[in-house]
Amino acid sequence: MTHYRLALLGFGNVGRNLVKLLGEKQAELQARYGITFVLTGIASRRLGWLVNENGFGLEAALADPQTASDQAVDTLDAWLTAARPDVLFENSSMNPHTGQPALDYCRAALGRGIHVITANKGPVVHGYHELRQLAESQGVRFLFEAAVMGGAPIFSLFREALPACNLKRFRGILNSTTNLILTEMEHGLSYEAAVKKAQDLGIAETDPSFDVDGWDAAVKVAAIATVLMDVPVKPADVKPVGITALTQAQIQAARAAGRPYKLVCQAEKDAAGTVTVSVGPQQLESGDPLANVNGSDSLAIFETDTLYRLNLSEGGADAYTTAYGPLADFVTISRS
Amino acid sequence: MTHYRLALLGFGNVGRNLVKLLGEKQAELQARYGITFVLTGIASRRLGWLVNENGFGLEAALADPQTASDQAVDTLDAWLTAARPDVLFENSSMNPHTGQPALDYCRAALGRGIHVITANKGPVVHGYHELRQLAESQGVRFLFEAAVMGGAPIFSLFREALPACNLKRFRGILNSTTNLILTEMEHGLSYEAAVKKAQDLGIAETDPSFDVDGWDAAVKVAAIATVLMDVPVKPADVKPVGITALTQAQIQAARAAGRPYKLVCQAEKDAAGTVTVSVGPQQLESGDPLANVNGSDSLAIFETDTLYRLNLSEGGADAYTTAYGPLADFVTISRS
Repeated sequence: MTHYRLALLGFGNVGRNLVKLLGEKQAELQARYGITFVLTGIASRRLGWLVNENGFGLEAALADPQTASDQAVDTLDAWLTAARPDVLFENSSMNPHTGQPALDYCRAALGRGIHVITANKGPVVHGYHELRQLAESQGVRFLFEAAVMGGAPIFSLFREALPACNLKRFRGILNSTTNLILTEMEHGLSYEAAVKKAQDLGIAETDPSFDVDGWDAAVKVAAIATVLMDVPVKPADVKPVGITALTQAQIQAARAAGRPYKLVCQAEKDAAGTVTVSVGPQQLESGDPLANVNGSDSLAIFETDTLYRLNLSEGGADAYTTAYGPLADFVTISRS
Repeated sequence: MTHYRLALLGFGNVGRNLVKLLGEKQAELQARYGITFVLTGIASRRLGWLVNENGFGLEAALADPQTASDQAVDTLDAWLTAARPDVLFENSSMNPHTGQPALDYCRAALGRGIHVITANKGPVVHGYHELRQLAESQGVRFLFEAAVMGGAPIFSLFREALPACNLKRFRGILNSTTNLILTEMEHGLSYEAAVKKAQDLGIAETDPSFDVDGWDAAVKVAAIATVLMDVPVKPADVKPVGITALTQAQIQAARAAGRPYKLVCQAEKDAAGTVTVSVGPQQLESGDPLANVNGSDSLAIFETDTLYRLNLSEGGADAYTTAYGPLADFVTISRS
């Protein structure tokens, strides 16, 4: 049995679903993996830095973290000192162009010898090699399965299940907002109505520009290139092209011709080790697996040196399935 | 650095490609995983039980194992004694209805404390729980990634990358011969011509009955239920229905109507833990991912308690990609 003190930084949809999942899986974690845990810290911009030295009850934490806490402090530093976590789950809001403040949160925790699990792609694209080295030097792990394709295992697939397998080429549909908008516009909705529908479904942000201009996809493909091809790529290097220049007439004509538009992410590593990355709308042949990804689904196509083509896709993803990523990372830490 | 003595039982397409891959990956295995190895045994029905105490050169083994050996013995027992392998790669021909003689080979090697890696599904469906216990009691591993979907990581996906994730429902297309035959019959070939084409491509056996009667698919879905749902299922329990009762007119009409026939494998575990398994032709809706699996590709759809739908598919599989399964298992052993 190994006992872990856990702290959550960020208590939005993913953080709350993670607490729910930890509760559902508590007995299984103990029986199958010898893991017991207590949640000693919860923090968010709204809640402040909350501590419960003896552990928040999970249900009480979901109901009202403030009432469930026995101490509130003022800074990250004081919070880590008081909560003394072995593992920090970092799911805060952050700026994907800079990775901040999540990047600094990860640095601070790893520097104290705390394992860090993040669902944020910002720290991955802006700090992967630095944070991995910092984690190694402290004898802890920096893991981020949920950063791309939510709980679907992209990074652990290569790290754990595909040893001695090298990614040469990647193609994928990784942004659900734009894919849903394109699908809805094919079905006759205007751009504005399609954006509204994506917002009503909780998929698109109030300001959809980060998605529709291709930046979310750019951060994701940069994370894949950085981690799975081991070559640092920044979102700005991707120079993404979004979907806003496409007219409804173009989108409908393309679908009618059997060659639909999709926002395609690509990364390729040549024999010299140089990586080329792009994000932009492409008209796809009907036989292309990417052409058949509809609505909010996602698909990753990997071409490697040992397997010619391996496709991984996820359907029905939401905050609950995304929260499975950090949970899986937690089990990975307990095994290492 | 860990040094391994390796032995190969079975030296057909998969065994030979594994030797090729071991050669290509030798430097990478050493640099990334601290693995060095020497191949001390090669055996097959045709070659007999060959040993080279100091190690077969990999190229020499591929060119002519008999010339490359320094000793030939008469039995499995004598061969294991002389070759003293740490890891046995078991890729022999076997009877999938009984798993023999591969099952006995696995028992013998595990009983001696030798890790066993097999590409055969027979020992998995006929001996998984027994062989896993035997391996545990000897402190070694019994691994079989290539048994279903070749080198694509089905078993390691759940074992390594999806901890605390429980498979509830599986649907898949796992038999490339029948899928290719159905695709070709849709395109106008007769059943006989489609079988001939699959044979010419090296996908179908001289006697295609094991594939077209659904038995290959039945063994594979039995392996998935046995391992990933942890409930022993034998191929006979599946009561497979093959594709031979379908006429070309039916197959073409189904495709023309947008609801093609596919040989679908299914397994479902209910809340009480009872597993229901089937293999048979089904007419699929055009939006079903299984409907879009053409030719010799394969697709596995997993529904789990933590991820609603995760699809894994492989394209262009051959003996080289299948040989990656045992190689990945070898690295897994070195990590455990």
